[in-house]
Amino acid sequence: MDIKQKIEKANEEAARRLTLGEPVLVDIAPAREVILGMKDKMITHAGPPIEWNRMCGAMQGAIIGMVIYEGWAKTPDEARNILDKGEIHLEPNHHHQNVGPMAGTISPSLPLWVVENKAFGNRAFCRQVEGNQQFGDYSEQAIQGLRMWRDVWAPTLRKALHTIGGLDLKPIIAKALQMGDELHNRHTASSSLFANAMAVAIAQTEYENKGSVIGTLKYITNHELIFLGLAMAAGKAIADPACDIEYSTVVTAMCRNGVEFGIRVSGLGDEWFTAPAPVVNGLYMPGYSVEDAGLDMGDSAITETVGWGGFVIGGAPGILSLVGGTPEEALNYSREMGKITVGVHPNYRMPILGFAGAPIGIDIRLVVQNNITPIIDTAIAHKDSGYPKIGAGLLRAPAECFKKALIAFGKRYSA
Amino acid sequence: MDIKQKIEKANEEAARRLTLGEPVLVDIAPAREVILGMKDKMITHAGPPIEWNRMCGAMQGAIIGMVIYEGWAKTPDEARNILDKGEIHLEPNHHHQNVGPMAGTISPSLPLWVVENKAFGNRAFCRQVEGNQQFGDYSEQAIQGLRMWRDVWAPTLRKALHTIGGLDLKPIIAKALQMGDELHNRHTASSSLFANAMAVAIAQTEYENKGSVIGTLKYITNHELIFLGLAMAAGKAIADPACDIEYSTVVTAMCRNGVEFGIRVSGLGDEWFTAPAPVVNGLYMPGYSVEDAGLDMGDSAITETVGWGGFVIGGAPGILSLVGGTPEEALNYSREMGKITVGVHPNYRMPILGFAGAPIGIDIRLVVQNNITPIIDTAIAHKDSGYPKIGAGLLRAPAECFKKALIAFGKRYSA
Repeated sequence: MDIKQKIEKANEEAARRLTLGEPVLVDIAPAREVILGMKDKMITHAGPPIEWNRMCGAMQGAIIGMVIYEGWAKTPDEARNILDKGEIHLEPNHHHQNVGPMAGTISPSLPLWVVENKAFGNRAFCRQVEGNQQFGDYSEQAIQGLRMWRDVWAPTLRKALHTIGGLDLKPIIAKALQMGDELHNRHTASSSLFANAMAVAIAQTEYENKGSVIGTLKYITNHELIFLGLAMAAGKAIADPACDIEYSTVVTAMCRNGVEFGIRVSGLGDEWFTAPAPVVNGLYMPGYSVEDAGLDMGDSAITETVGWGGFVIGGAPGILSLVGGTPEEALNYSREMGKITVGVHPNYRMPILGFAGAPIGIDIRLVVQNNITPIIDTAIAHKDSGYPKIGAGLLRAPAECFKKALIAFGKRYSA
Repeated sequence: MDIKQKIEKANEEAARRLTLGEPVLVDIAPAREVILGMKDKMITHAGPPIEWNRMCGAMQGAIIGMVIYEGWAKTPDEARNILDKGEIHLEPNHHHQNVGPMAGTISPSLPLWVVENKAFGNRAFCRQVEGNQQFGDYSEQAIQGLRMWRDVWAPTLRKALHTIGGLDLKPIIAKALQMGDELHNRHTASSSLFANAMAVAIAQTEYENKGSVIGTLKYITNHELIFLGLAMAAGKAIADPACDIEYSTVVTAMCRNGVEFGIRVSGLGDEWFTAPAPVVNGLYMPGYSVEDAGLDMGDSAITETVGWGGFVIGGAPGILSLVGGTPEEALNYSREMGKITVGVHPNYRMPILGFAGAPIGIDIRLVVQNNITPIIDTAIAHKDSGYPKIGAGLLRAPAECFKKALIAFGKRYSA
């Protein structure tokens, strides 16, 4: 076999693994219970590695929020002070099998969605999705949302989940893709289906604590992005078995820390290939504009990595009222992503494209050769700390990441 | 004003009324409590008027089922015997402000969805949607489904609904149309959203009767067509205020009894304009084929009458796996329906068509002039009694109804 054949074979294997994924929600547990290597005073964050003083405003704000949430500091100033002194370990989520939306910050006591890929036995984790703290807002109200998640919603969901022995996410994902979700920014259907799937189990736990149960039912039946955390954990659980295939040029992670965009490639181990994080081309909440916007941020592009989000946006035109663009553009994005991917998912389909399968397995060679970069739809944080979500939009992954990776690939496999 | 101007003005008024509808679920009550004119031994049925001995097999089967359900007979033979003797009053749903899917049979003790159009104060009713009895299956299992509805699900939902003081259906309808539902045959999104909207209220009634509450939560969170009954009651509640506008050529009802297809027209009062019910062009459940199919049946075309169903099928390509056809055909149906309607709904929109509004207000003149008949997507019953649902598909309303109506209109308004 020449190198080209070896690459094709390796990429076939990567595509096979990506399509075999069977994500099941098996637990909702505090980070310290499930993340190996979660230290006492540690916070993990979105994107490739970055030090405290290089972080963008929104990520710094989110980390300040977590420090207050954990009780390691009482005020934002105090939090900033101990962070400046380097007293908190900061590491990327992706180094610990986890992912997080926007700043993606995870600290020891924060309950996480625990998703197991039953086809391979690996697990991945994601934090709760909300629109304040993870965007850099460290107000009392923002932190109170985390406390409610920790003290009421997550424990009640956990108990309910245990009574039903886990929840298979694949049917929800497949169905939601036929209901106008793209599973990155639009989770209207998946969140509703998830709430439906959990409602009976939650109601059955009522006799122990009615207030928590009714509160949790209210929370999940009114949270249109609750499934994003599940989709992200599922995406990570699906992507991880495709890592470390010799000769594979398939991307296994795409993520951003608000300063840099980073990718990992199956045949290139744990190395990050980075470029400056792009500006998001989006629509803004009243009172905000592009002047206020931070750069692209979050691990949520794990959804595009496994073929959702921008890759299936043609099937989710309802999202255009949130991110802008026309239905025809959206359809073209999905068609275009077929030109940089090595496979098509047999179960995740888009009815409007004649039930075409989601394009999966981004090939760095095809990205560079065709000069087509992955399209990502995402939320927008403020450039400074202290703000909630300010908008949502579309962007292209920077070509530089893929070029750097291709050069590294050439070096590694040329011998 | 010449007659043409009078018609245009009247149709504008019809369109205005159709777009103003504010359907709210206000109760779930036994037919005898809410239907004026519901007599003791009476069953109302789908479609234009028809006598017992002219009814198709499926409708006869459904009526036999209702007779057994009400305890007026113990066996199908006994039921058929009293029906042959004319001992049961049979009248069309549409004569009593109600509608029903497929055979659409409603008897005094059957709980109905009660929808009030808050913009006009009128009410309309629809029965429970299920896949057996209303298709003509009178087996013990089929009738047991009605008893569960009467004794457990409906009373629990009613109690829950009363605690929240009614449920506004317009937001659910608008959202579901952006989630791939067309609100006739595909109710995956609307049913899920409805279950979410009711879950908290249902769970809060738990302390009185846990079994009923958990059973009802299970029922509504696993019933992908539960919202069809609500959409139909909403459609009837929206359509009725558009009736009886002098000079209006807008259709206010389309329905079928399995033998005849009938329409009513705003400016023509209560008169039915009928033609033989068409064959449905569809896909069949395993074990059934077009040989087994009955003709088009049900009041469910009230959804098309108010601009849903086939009229918005372009936004619901997921349904094509059920009814057949391509996404491009579906988009063209929705575009085509714009040519026979007098308005566009400002809130009910299709993202894939650039958020175009649903085409509303079928004009009999445009149907005849353009030779374009309304497209309807619907379920298929067996030609004989005793069977559950056997398929689903698409059909065109017969042109003859519209031609007859136009002739009658010419006679009435020519003086």
